[in-house]
Amino acid sequence: MYYKSSIELREAIRKEKFKTQTSGQAKGYIQANLVVLPENWAFDFLLFAQRNPKSCSIIEAGSAGEYLTKYIAENADVRTDIPKYRVFKHGELFEERYNLLDIWQDDFVFFLLGCSFSFEHALLEADIEVRHISENVNVPMYNTNILCREAGKFKASPMVVSMRPFIPNNAIKAIEITRDYPSVHGSPIYFGNPKEIGIEDINKPDYGDAVTIRENEVPVFWACGVTPQKAAMVAKPPVMITHVPGYMFVGDIKDKDLKI
Amino acid sequence: MYYKSSIELREAIRKEKFKTQTSGQAKGYIQANLVVLPENWAFDFLLFAQRNPKSCSIIEAGSAGEYLTKYIAENADVRTDIPKYRVFKHGELFEERYNLLDIWQDDFVFFLLGCSFSFEHALLEADIEVRHISENVNVPMYNTNILCREAGKFKASPMVVSMRPFIPNNAIKAIEITRDYPSVHGSPIYFGNPKEIGIEDINKPDYGDAVTIRENEVPVFWACGVTPQKAAMVAKPPVMITHVPGYMFVGDIKDKDLKI
Repeated sequence: MYYKSSIELREAIRKEKFKTQTSGQAKGYIQANLVVLPENWAFDFLLFAQRNPKSCSIIEAGSAGEYLTKYIAENADVRTDIPKYRVFKHGELFEERYNLLDIWQDDFVFFLLGCSFSFEHALLEADIEVRHISENVNVPMYNTNILCREAGKFKASPMVVSMRPFIPNNAIKAIEITRDYPSVHGSPIYFGNPKEIGIEDINKPDYGDAVTIRENEVPVFWACGVTPQKAAMVAKPPVMITHVPGYMFVGDIKDKDLKI
Repeated sequence: MYYKSSIELREAIRKEKFKTQTSGQAKGYIQANLVVLPENWAFDFLLFAQRNPKSCSIIEAGSAGEYLTKYIAENADVRTDIPKYRVFKHGELFEERYNLLDIWQDDFVFFLLGCSFSFEHALLEADIEVRHISENVNVPMYNTNILCREAGKFKASPMVVSMRPFIPNNAIKAIEITRDYPSVHGSPIYFGNPKEIGIEDINKPDYGDAVTIRENEVPVFWACGVTPQKAAMVAKPPVMITHVPGYMFVGDIKDKDLKI
């Protein structure tokens, strides 16, 4: 079932009636990555995001203990309004769960980060085919040899990228379009030979699904909101909570409102 | 004396040989606003900046106790490399001084914020006259009735704006040019009747100097990096240090590198 309204979608998610991926849901509304950390890790993470804005652009963050959003949506509850969560302890995946009600702590700080789903909407509107959407799979994502800037307890960790293949003319258009969306990764960080950025096999993504790359196409790489999950695996905070990739927070702001 | 090199300028500032305004110095290099706060105010300030990016775009911030920059310049010292500092205690101006060596605390966190001097360079390059530069005075700045978004201990406080008058054709060009500089206030927040944003007398700026506005010109307003000083006067942190307006930090990054 496809929801048109972001408010109705979040209500279904909150009631655990909707427990799947959010791709294609509430079209035109922004989807965001979630990161939750204890207060004594929060400044370092905000600094990590500031230093790595292509990967981690904060759309909204709360003060310690706050779980209701103010800006991305009015009073959405980050403890319940995402279809599936991942809990990491000391950098290892501990469990997946459908809400955070039992485990929410007074010192938790939430961060909602920009997601490439927002600029894909703009690409489709410009009649540019987005391969993983055409093939109805998750976007392919890869660890790279590009190091993020460190920030306090977050030491240098690899940037994660998403990939979309285009013919050169569409790659140029995609660069032009996405540069105007700096809060959802902005312009690409690289295109061309995947080995140059440490990707050994383009057909074996580290996250998400492989997609077809045709003879006349070039793979184009954008910084990806999964980067903080990788950073957490390196920094090993006692607890960190994220969404399950693809199971996003859906807000009431429109994608097009993120255009500068 | 005009310095061409940002490194030589900072050296002269550090040795307290250069103690005046930095306007026109090290042309082409970025100038930045300084905010220093104790660690227990730092997260709230970073959140305030994230929620008010037009006024407060962070170019670089440190971890607690750090005073050397890494990105805006290599190993510049924020305790000595600004010509003049202001120390506020509980929201009141306590003193002005030439360095922070005696009063630096291990829990101090520095923030360097984008400054409109960077986009003015781009305006001049496009042959757009910038009035306060032509008249050789400081840019006029005003308190407004536009409230910033609050963040933790930083409650809602008025946005401070800078003003430049243009004929409509140049105002349009200035909007186009500055939108590509989101890290130095980006596009204007308003143009037209000053009373609409709570400015009673355009000829009596709250900070800086008045400039000539001709019959056929419209005043154009940009969010201003003095906004955090106003926010601090409202929030009253026990101690907060800033630069003296116009006495900026000069980095080694070029203005043009801030263009998205």
